[in-house]
Amino acid sequence: MLDRAIALAREERDMALSNLCAAVRIPSIGAASAHRPDMLRNAEFVANRLRSMGAEVRVLEVISGKPPVVRGDLLIDPALPTLTIYGHYDVQPVDPLEDWVSPPFEPEVRDHVLYGRGACDSKGNHMAAIQGVDCLKRSCGLGLNVRFLIEGEEETTGQALPAYLRENAKELTSDYVLVLDGSFHQDGYPILATGMRGELYVEIYADGPDHDLHSGHYGGVSPNPANTLARILGALKDREGKVTIPGFYDDIKQIPAVEIQDAQRSQEYGEIVRKRIGAVALEGEAGFLPIERQWLRPTLDVNGMVSGFTGEGEKTIIPATAMAKLSMRLVPGQDPDKIYSQLVRYVSELGTPGVQLRIEKLGACKAFVCSAAHKAGEAASTAFETSFGQTPLPVRKGSSIPVVADLIETIGGQMVLTGIGNPDSRVHSPNENIRLDHFHKGTEMIIRFVHALRAA
Amino acid sequence: MLDRAIALAREERDMALSNLCAAVRIPSIGAASAHRPDMLRNAEFVANRLRSMGAEVRVLEVISGKPPVVRGDLLIDPALPTLTIYGHYDVQPVDPLEDWVSPPFEPEVRDHVLYGRGACDSKGNHMAAIQGVDCLKRSCGLGLNVRFLIEGEEETTGQALPAYLRENAKELTSDYVLVLDGSFHQDGYPILATGMRGELYVEIYADGPDHDLHSGHYGGVSPNPANTLARILGALKDREGKVTIPGFYDDIKQIPAVEIQDAQRSQEYGEIVRKRIGAVALEGEAGFLPIERQWLRPTLDVNGMVSGFTGEGEKTIIPATAMAKLSMRLVPGQDPDKIYSQLVRYVSELGTPGVQLRIEKLGACKAFVCSAAHKAGEAASTAFETSFGQTPLPVRKGSSIPVVADLIETIGGQMVLTGIGNPDSRVHSPNENIRLDHFHKGTEMIIRFVHALRAA
Repeated sequence: MLDRAIALAREERDMALSNLCAAVRIPSIGAASAHRPDMLRNAEFVANRLRSMGAEVRVLEVISGKPPVVRGDLLIDPALPTLTIYGHYDVQPVDPLEDWVSPPFEPEVRDHVLYGRGACDSKGNHMAAIQGVDCLKRSCGLGLNVRFLIEGEEETTGQALPAYLRENAKELTSDYVLVLDGSFHQDGYPILATGMRGELYVEIYADGPDHDLHSGHYGGVSPNPANTLARILGALKDREGKVTIPGFYDDIKQIPAVEIQDAQRSQEYGEIVRKRIGAVALEGEAGFLPIERQWLRPTLDVNGMVSGFTGEGEKTIIPATAMAKLSMRLVPGQDPDKIYSQLVRYVSELGTPGVQLRIEKLGACKAFVCSAAHKAGEAASTAFETSFGQTPLPVRKGSSIPVVADLIETIGGQMVLTGIGNPDSRVHSPNENIRLDHFHKGTEMIIRFVHALRAA
Repeated sequence: MLDRAIALAREERDMALSNLCAAVRIPSIGAASAHRPDMLRNAEFVANRLRSMGAEVRVLEVISGKPPVVRGDLLIDPALPTLTIYGHYDVQPVDPLEDWVSPPFEPEVRDHVLYGRGACDSKGNHMAAIQGVDCLKRSCGLGLNVRFLIEGEEETTGQALPAYLRENAKELTSDYVLVLDGSFHQDGYPILATGMRGELYVEIYADGPDHDLHSGHYGGVSPNPANTLARILGALKDREGKVTIPGFYDDIKQIPAVEIQDAQRSQEYGEIVRKRIGAVALEGEAGFLPIERQWLRPTLDVNGMVSGFTGEGEKTIIPATAMAKLSMRLVPGQDPDKIYSQLVRYVSELGTPGVQLRIEKLGACKAFVCSAAHKAGEAASTAFETSFGQTPLPVRKGSSIPVVADLIETIGGQMVLTGIGNPDSRVHSPNENIRLDHFHKGTEMIIRFVHALRAA
């Protein structure tokens, strides 16, 4: 029975890839309001794909003006268990555009790798999941209820899906939840995540004079928002990688010994990462191994900053404004709202009298931990082993999927948090990609995983 | 006799304004290599204007590939004294373009004010000087030798004119030098500068990973060049406005008491400046009055900075690179080359192991002091009084005209360093302008000034 589903998936590989390319062609950049029509187009694309496999589909504009949540139900019997599969159709911005070998929304296969924004994150993941479920359904039936929830606000920490989950928690209650959004580990193995970091993302605006000034005439009297903002950003983390916001580390929960063991298993890991990112040395919080710093410790990074004249040559001005984007990755125990208050207070203390500061919170979500030691976790583990010849390892992920904490709190169920992307999928970076074998084997992994759950 | 020259200038006001507009229409942005053809076009424009008044003109490509120096000689008798008039045809970049009410290179008169890049700095100044000399010559003869030196590298601290001055110092020796490039003082009165600050302009480049990274995956292990550069910039000047580069203040010459008196004459000055720049408060080195901080003290300003993602919304990346432009205004005694070495050493001490830093020097010039208490200074003073009804005051200027130190060292002569722009000419800023009455009265001031010199 299972063999028929796998055979069908293999027959349809070209079509599945073509469907994925069609998804990647939609420039569904969640952060850019100009792409709002593309968001709607992508939601409709997902809805149509789910309809084509017989799902009962709802395109839900939960919050007016925000990208809709696509819900697709394949409910066969309320007595059977239910699996919810989560994905997102929004993608990251594409700049720096000039670093892409092929245009981000013109998917291109080079050397068995598909390049394009969203090829992995998460279009490659959820399109594989849909195809896998479709193949299983057509070849031998599902044998359990499957529900897809594909949102459009993962990259922007939106509130539509969390709100929908809270309002409909009872109806959506699931026995199993598959969050398929990510890649294999940097070290090369597939993962079953046992937790993710939370996030706080802010913009800091600094205003000085009301127009750019001649730096000779006014240097020494005018406030300079670029100097002030740089001083503030520089003061938020010391040279040893320790975040200096007062109270930042206060509420961190103690890490279980097993997690620390997991994190310490590869001593060569740091060098592997250093080579992958192409830096002369790693940096990070003193006293912790690289993987501990990625999984178990919070951090703070400037994501972007801009002020004044940045073109060619000399322009001697005192800029009127400066702006920086700043994100913190948080760990269990840290409350993003509390950290935000601490940040606002600290930044205002660091300010200077002539510069007006404004902080805007763009997104916030809590870290979470979850177990992978359950039936669904075992089913996923076996499905990865059979499909990829590799056994997943438990990891704490350094990144954030905002809605997972909400999923755990509302619809419950055994959580499987994984992804089929390759270790070098360059998610969020130029030349994002998915290896074709990862996409196709990922589809087969889904078939085996769902099939194992129904054999309950 | 003088009256005939003034009358002629008044008759020709429309034509003079039209000539200035033609000059402003040429986008001679010195910093942008794409504008190289415009630089050549502007040099030729100046040359033709000088030819039209009978000058012997040379367009000198002193340094291959660099904007030419335009030299125009009106030599009537080697026995008579010589006046050299300095100006520059290069202008500052125009961004932020969206802040201009009318396009920067489409000169427009609104409410008796001409708007456009270069309208004051220095096209408005040197076009008035040329027109004034022309009127005097045609109406009653010059009575002394006049030489124009109009360069194209003032805004970029170029080396062409300094090199030309050194090579031809003897031939160019002058009795009087008029550097006409600037505006009335912020306080509203015309000025005779008794010194200007020097400058050191650098770019700092910071490189971390070789591509932008996902800040969740790599936050805690990857170096972040934006964090490191911000920390460095923030450390260069403390919250009290003191530059912290070791040795920065060591070589500053003692300020004569008279200069300090000049600087302290207006106690309300700070509030006037604050309103003009539209800031909530002034900032600057603790322990000094605002005008002392502008005239007599060095300073350090970030002119621009850029890194990572600065578009709309969240993009969670660790940027691969960061860049900042930084300028220091220097005072007599400070050697730009020595300060540059001190800066390079300090910046490298502030760096972090994973970020590669590179500093590029874009320009450097020394501060200087000069006297205005001589015949030429008195002639200028009387000419301003008669033309504008205002007596110029001696000031030390906070800005820099790189070549003045070279003029003093090479061709000598009594130095008059002034400008006819209005106090709110917004030089280097969007909506640069010159009031029509300043342009026309400035032309008359030139006539009176040159006429007074010949009555020796």
